Amino acid sequence: MKKALILLGCPEAPSQTPLAVYTTYKLKERGYDVTVASTPSAMKLLEVSDPESFYVTNKVDIESCLENLNEKEYDLLFGFVHKDAAAAYFVTFYHILNTESVALVFEKDIDLLEKFIKDVQESTDSKIVSARAYHNPTPLRVKIDRYIETLEV
Amino acid sequence: MKKALILLGCPEAPSQTPLAVYTTYKLKERGYDVTVASTPSAMKLLEVSDPESFYVTNKVDIESCLENLNEKEYDLLFGFVHKDAAAAYFVTFYHILNTESVALVFEKDIDLLEKFIKDVQESTDSKIVSARAYHNPTPLRVKIDRYIETLEV
Repeated sequence: MKKALILLGCPEAPSQTPLAVYTTYKLKERGYDVTVASTPSAMKLLEVSDPESFYVTNKVDIESCLENLNEKEYDLLFGFVHKDAAAAYFVTFYHILNTESVALVFEKDIDLLEKFIKDVQESTDSKIVSARAYHNPTPLRVKIDRYIETLEV
Repeated sequence: MKKALILLGCPEAPSQTPLAVYTTYKLKERGYDVTVASTPSAMKLLEVSDPESFYVTNKVDIESCLENLNEKEYDLLFGFVHKDAAAAYFVTFYHILNTESVALVFEKDIDLLEKFIKDVQESTDSKIVSARAYHNPTPLRVKIDRYIETLEV
């Protein structure tokens, strides 16, 4: 079974937790074993959002995950990027894992959105899925669906 | 079976959707039939957050719900209040339903938090559960648990 790692940074955007659950769900449907690595506050939100762990079964602390990470340990890296810290985490994981990667970049401020896209582009050859989004998850959900459809099963 | 109505306003706070799923889950555990009435954007987030409707089975548009609402139609009104509009919805539903009610008031700004509490207190005799909260859901989750434990089954 292929393995995917989803990265969650600081959960300031209201759509992050819902979209993290959704992406986990869609990747599992596609046959991936999914682990979510997140900061402590993002993890608290995930736990409250899915109290029976019906959707998100594997959760790890992002720092512990990073300490023990090996090249090619996951077949897919899926990063949520809407803060500088999240972009930095994504770039770090990208270079250690050296695997198929996608950055999901979202921000309501267009200048910040472009800045985060540029940060990821300058430091990686990752695919980028982006939308100007804050509390409406639909533009990102549609793009996530399209990206996941392109993945080899 | 007792019936509960959860009200969700504009989903600007990152903890609202996770806490709405959590509250639905806990009220169902307590034996309530739960309906969530929400604005269109809050509903989109709920749908993405729970793609199989494992937690939230009954969802209605808040305006349609209001048009058809009758006194005592629900045994419990549970309102999420962190905007003026949400406070106004809560007060309106409170006076039509005339039933056991609780307002969950949360804001990261202490002055706004106090303003929303005052708004609810001045217009209703509802119980109030409040916390200064934004993306850490724990203070509210603990208070929600305590409130739900006080409910008669």
